[in-house]
Amino acid sequence: MGLLVVGSLGLDDVSTPFHKIENALGGAATYISMAASYFTAPIYLVGVVGEDFPKEYIDLLEEKNIDLEGLQVIAGGKTFRWAGKYHYDLNVRDTLLTELGVFENFDPVVPGKYQQASFICLGNIDPVLQMKVLNQMIAPKCVVCDTMNYWIEGQKDELLKLLKRVNILIINDSETRLLADEPNLIKAAKHILDLGPEILIIKKGEHGALLISKDTIFSAPAYPLESIYDPTGAGDTFAGGFIGYLHKTQDLSIDNIKRAVIYGSTMASFCVEHFSTKGLEDIGNLRVNDRYREFLNLSKCDEL
Amino acid sequence: MGLLVVGSLGLDDVSTPFHKIENALGGAATYISMAASYFTAPIYLVGVVGEDFPKEYIDLLEEKNIDLEGLQVIAGGKTFRWAGKYHYDLNVRDTLLTELGVFENFDPVVPGKYQQASFICLGNIDPVLQMKVLNQMIAPKCVVCDTMNYWIEGQKDELLKLLKRVNILIINDSETRLLADEPNLIKAAKHILDLGPEILIIKKGEHGALLISKDTIFSAPAYPLESIYDPTGAGDTFAGGFIGYLHKTQDLSIDNIKRAVIYGSTMASFCVEHFSTKGLEDIGNLRVNDRYREFLNLSKCDEL
Repeated sequence: MGLLVVGSLGLDDVSTPFHKIENALGGAATYISMAASYFTAPIYLVGVVGEDFPKEYIDLLEEKNIDLEGLQVIAGGKTFRWAGKYHYDLNVRDTLLTELGVFENFDPVVPGKYQQASFICLGNIDPVLQMKVLNQMIAPKCVVCDTMNYWIEGQKDELLKLLKRVNILIINDSETRLLADEPNLIKAAKHILDLGPEILIIKKGEHGALLISKDTIFSAPAYPLESIYDPTGAGDTFAGGFIGYLHKTQDLSIDNIKRAVIYGSTMASFCVEHFSTKGLEDIGNLRVNDRYREFLNLSKCDEL
Repeated sequence: MGLLVVGSLGLDDVSTPFHKIENALGGAATYISMAASYFTAPIYLVGVVGEDFPKEYIDLLEEKNIDLEGLQVIAGGKTFRWAGKYHYDLNVRDTLLTELGVFENFDPVVPGKYQQASFICLGNIDPVLQMKVLNQMIAPKCVVCDTMNYWIEGQKDELLKLLKRVNILIINDSETRLLADEPNLIKAAKHILDLGPEILIIKKGEHGALLISKDTIFSAPAYPLESIYDPTGAGDTFAGGFIGYLHKTQDLSIDNIKRAVIYGSTMASFCVEHFSTKGLEDIGNLRVNDRYREFLNLSKCDEL
């Protein structure tokens, strides 16, 4: 049974101090699916694009064993667009443009053959849409969800309803503090565990990630990259590597979920080394596994 | 042979959303010495206070096996004072007052019996004073140094001269970027290794610490504290636990230096749980070792 992914597909204009690209392949579902494709197949993609979505991007997704039966292509519609500019310190970015396009009226339909999928990744979109997808699924077993400040502030009630049905929530540190209304990250995390998810994973960018459950705290390092070209999609890529590995192994033990965090971090480190999805297009399993082991070594310390 | 520590001793007024204290024991050398005292003895303290420095603080330091022959007490002089206010998010603080007092004309004199010390911790003071201390030492083997934005911006030439004689530099992430004039932390760290230190340790507060040498990168987690009362002195306490453990073990292998980073983090986690030096006054070795092991477990992940 495939891994179900829902989220945005988009066309991105991104500029950094190093480079500038236009009409690049983007969107949460794109990054999630491509990262997950290194671990498992098929990926069942639920999303929407306009008629302007390039054929080459469709081909690229299909090459990665991403099933597009659930991708709506709206005749005459315009694909979701995002434009952003990164500063010299790549941790700081301005959003220059967000055009919803066909996303404005998106009504996600999960094809029959997808509905049995038990591993589900709800990419960062309106929690109302995330819930609509979840309601079409017959046997959810591992529901991973991402969200953002915009929905926490603007759709809190809908998000809280959704969280009761989420197993693993993946958000960043400022979103964690915002959702819990608590500045201490650990207190905030414990509060969020009371809202539904059994596990919270906090993405901290260049500071790594934290996994928090009722009984466990696991701190994963970030890969010490000297060349970061484009941070766009890193968080989605993390989620994709994470759930891709879980789906491959079908093992939801806490030790395996820790390994999934490291695989998520591994994929994110590849993502930011190139523009758009370029860093995810042709990695090879050997490089994935090598970097995974480097990650493990980063925090290794003999107790004596 | 004792461990030599130089730095400020002060009286602090600190307010946080939870509490407010005045005339509390503070200063870099105070925190360094008290943290190191859990690992080794004696500590040779070089510093200066005024006549207003309370007798009870002298007693406290002496109880911790801190040798005060190198502490100048200036008759009629006023002790260094600092006042700060932490916000609801304890990562943000305002400095309300800095009065140098007797520090303004401090001329550090290293007593004869201290001069053979081979482990030296240069707490965060003017690099000119740090150099004066170093010049009085006969056989430095492990020179650990802390500094801050103020000296990086105002005394760069003197600092660069000093760094050529430093083995291990301990600074935070923004200081690392500032000193190297480079936003990428890893690139910045490598640049700093070219300035003299063999090892750079980057303190990242709630995100842990990074150790970087020519061949090694080690990522240490932060302890997931739910109750942080007063972050004052955490960085100095880290340095004290770090060099205290190194001095105790006399082992400068990279594996042992990694353990020292975890011990430094351990001591810093105790420091911030209480006001001023309270968290360091009576810990007990069992609690130190328990928390050290908890730290190691935080980032443990079975490779499979």
